[in-house]
Amino acid sequence: MALVNEHFLKLPGSYLFSDIAKKVNTFKVTHPKQDIIRLGIGDVTQPLAAACIEAMYKAVDEMTRKETFRGYGPDQGYDFLIEAIIKNDYALRGIQLNNAEVFISDGAKSDTGNIGDILRHDNSVGVTDPIYPVYIDSNVMCGRAGVLEDGQWSNVMYIPCTGENHFIPQIPDKRIDILYLCYPNNPTGTTLSKQELKKWVDYALENDTLILFDAAYEAYIQDPEIPHSIYEIKGAKKCAIEFRSFSKTAGFTGIRCGYTVVPKELTGATLTGERISLNQLWNRRQSTKFNGASYITQRAAEAIYSPEGKEQIKKTISYYMGNAKIMKEGLESTGLKVYGGENAPYLWVKTPKGISSWRFFEQMLYEARVVGTPGVGFGPSGEGYIRLTAFGEHSDCVEAMKRIKTWLA
Amino acid sequence: MALVNEHFLKLPGSYLFSDIAKKVNTFKVTHPKQDIIRLGIGDVTQPLAAACIEAMYKAVDEMTRKETFRGYGPDQGYDFLIEAIIKNDYALRGIQLNNAEVFISDGAKSDTGNIGDILRHDNSVGVTDPIYPVYIDSNVMCGRAGVLEDGQWSNVMYIPCTGENHFIPQIPDKRIDILYLCYPNNPTGTTLSKQELKKWVDYALENDTLILFDAAYEAYIQDPEIPHSIYEIKGAKKCAIEFRSFSKTAGFTGIRCGYTVVPKELTGATLTGERISLNQLWNRRQSTKFNGASYITQRAAEAIYSPEGKEQIKKTISYYMGNAKIMKEGLESTGLKVYGGENAPYLWVKTPKGISSWRFFEQMLYEARVVGTPGVGFGPSGEGYIRLTAFGEHSDCVEAMKRIKTWLA
Repeated sequence: MALVNEHFLKLPGSYLFSDIAKKVNTFKVTHPKQDIIRLGIGDVTQPLAAACIEAMYKAVDEMTRKETFRGYGPDQGYDFLIEAIIKNDYALRGIQLNNAEVFISDGAKSDTGNIGDILRHDNSVGVTDPIYPVYIDSNVMCGRAGVLEDGQWSNVMYIPCTGENHFIPQIPDKRIDILYLCYPNNPTGTTLSKQELKKWVDYALENDTLILFDAAYEAYIQDPEIPHSIYEIKGAKKCAIEFRSFSKTAGFTGIRCGYTVVPKELTGATLTGERISLNQLWNRRQSTKFNGASYITQRAAEAIYSPEGKEQIKKTISYYMGNAKIMKEGLESTGLKVYGGENAPYLWVKTPKGISSWRFFEQMLYEARVVGTPGVGFGPSGEGYIRLTAFGEHSDCVEAMKRIKTWLA
Repeated sequence: MALVNEHFLKLPGSYLFSDIAKKVNTFKVTHPKQDIIRLGIGDVTQPLAAACIEAMYKAVDEMTRKETFRGYGPDQGYDFLIEAIIKNDYALRGIQLNNAEVFISDGAKSDTGNIGDILRHDNSVGVTDPIYPVYIDSNVMCGRAGVLEDGQWSNVMYIPCTGENHFIPQIPDKRIDILYLCYPNNPTGTTLSKQELKKWVDYALENDTLILFDAAYEAYIQDPEIPHSIYEIKGAKKCAIEFRSFSKTAGFTGIRCGYTVVPKELTGATLTGERISLNQLWNRRQSTKFNGASYITQRAAEAIYSPEGKEQIKKTISYYMGNAKIMKEGLESTGLKVYGGENAPYLWVKTPKGISSWRFFEQMLYEARVVGTPGVGFGPSGEGYIRLTAFGEHSDCVEAMKRIKTWLA
């Protein structure tokens, strides 16, 4: 008989955002006349950059004639996009990559979820805590996370990031095989300086740890001292895979495009100690279980790197960061302690008087009609925090702050 | 240290189509003035249907204004597309499905590759042979295929389909946990009648076997008696997952869209015999490791089901099937034995005098300047065959037949 993968059964039945949706729905049903402002889910709201739109029109038009029609593209993406990425996201920061080190995909969620395919099921895993749930859940699904004990997975090391340590994860005193880092961080909105990131690269090199570095929010960095790529740190090509996404950089949440960098010099080991190219394994994984991102999408992504595209996405990012500023100031004026929001589109708010995340979430929903995301949904160290996102409409952010001020006054 | 998934290392270093590309390239370098006609890879060549183009223009336009902008869509696809699929591909054939049973994706290659995530690593696997390499390779990658012994994987049962048995796979005398069926078949271009398919559904129900039914080519069926969906067979919802693709139906190889049907009543077992909904597991897998297909792509797919869209894709399919007819007649006139090409875009040609697939491939390349795909690349029972596809330009197909006739005369 066909047996199921029982690791799936260890997962909690529902996803954080479904739980939130249910609670919001209950509120709406019981309060049909009250409007709510959603600052919970990290989805963008502003239109696509004109340069991307133009590129898509053109790409669609190419599909109307057999002379310019495009069928299957290269499995790992078109060179026009790969070259734009290498030039703008890396070479300009002094990082050299070759085309075969960049893999275009339908988004960073797929890639961070699927990367585990190329790694043994019994590697130990480390995460900063709180963290994007996909890192944990995808490891649970293949058995790598172990079993759930008191809210923590037995084969996962949780590295706490809280107000107490200023959200700077402490280097562990034992080794981990695979470590997830996400900077600028989702959900806390905090960043790592070059010096702090270097400590992790050094740790990884020393311990033969593979770093899975998620830089999906790098476009929101305002401070020139904060690294955008882990490869700005010497030696990182020997120990890190980097994930990037156009979702938040250019509003591509509905368009679906991202990419993953797997340097040629990066290796993992076999049980007998032979070194194996991870680039080669990821290439094989993607060639077999993926068939390339849409041509039209890839043309849109290329346009982000045109002079007009760059200007346009910068403007949209400024719009969101303007929201973040208003929210940070608004929340702080009520006496709340707020982290993030300066180099990231997320604000991480300490709940007052030690109230739990879910309790604060419900109070804010019922008393201020504002939806956030309970911090504990991102891991044990998220308890006592709530996440707000800056992706909303400007006027909604202003109004939400008014409501929260009135509520907490 | 980070350990790699060593199952990957069991895979042959390169993929069938890369080997072919290399050989073709060698020919081109050594014969720079000779043109070749490619009837090897199954990629489409004709422009997209006007209805799809129009839908994409409209969808791109929606992305220009925040009132109509679309960010993250529903993980499993928009209802507008799911409902068009259920109505046209299923209800019209008497099959009732509900929306939660249809999962929109970026293509059937991803889905047939990823489906193994929800199944235990030690289920036994059955395939008709020859077969689409992704079914095998994705099982090798997770260890389910076992080890390679004399060109066959130890935990895979190969069910031969050859001229001798008229390409009708024989029901095995022992049970298999998971069985891949692809009809109309890639690579042989042959089909199964309702009676033959019913034998497999009955076998699956009796043996608690999960059928993974790939119907990517159903749009090419001309004979009204041949089933388009496995759910046309009574009981199939209890034993089968069905994969569909718009790649060949509507020329979406570069646009990327397909879908997978996982009926609610379909279950797998735990080791203790508990029955688990596969729909629920696939939903969890996709929610965690996938983030939906592009909105623009989904609108294009919806347009396939409009009255104009239906007419337009029918016309393109007729064009390709016209090619298939010319090729079949042309090849048969040289005395070659040809299968398929009547309800599928593939022709499966027996090599003359027992020549090997690769030998015939090279001869045809060097002597007729026509590229096919060696049958043995699809599995042991493909030895002594070559696959040709009908997706080329009409004039190229005519010219290719001329060349082959001259060569074999």
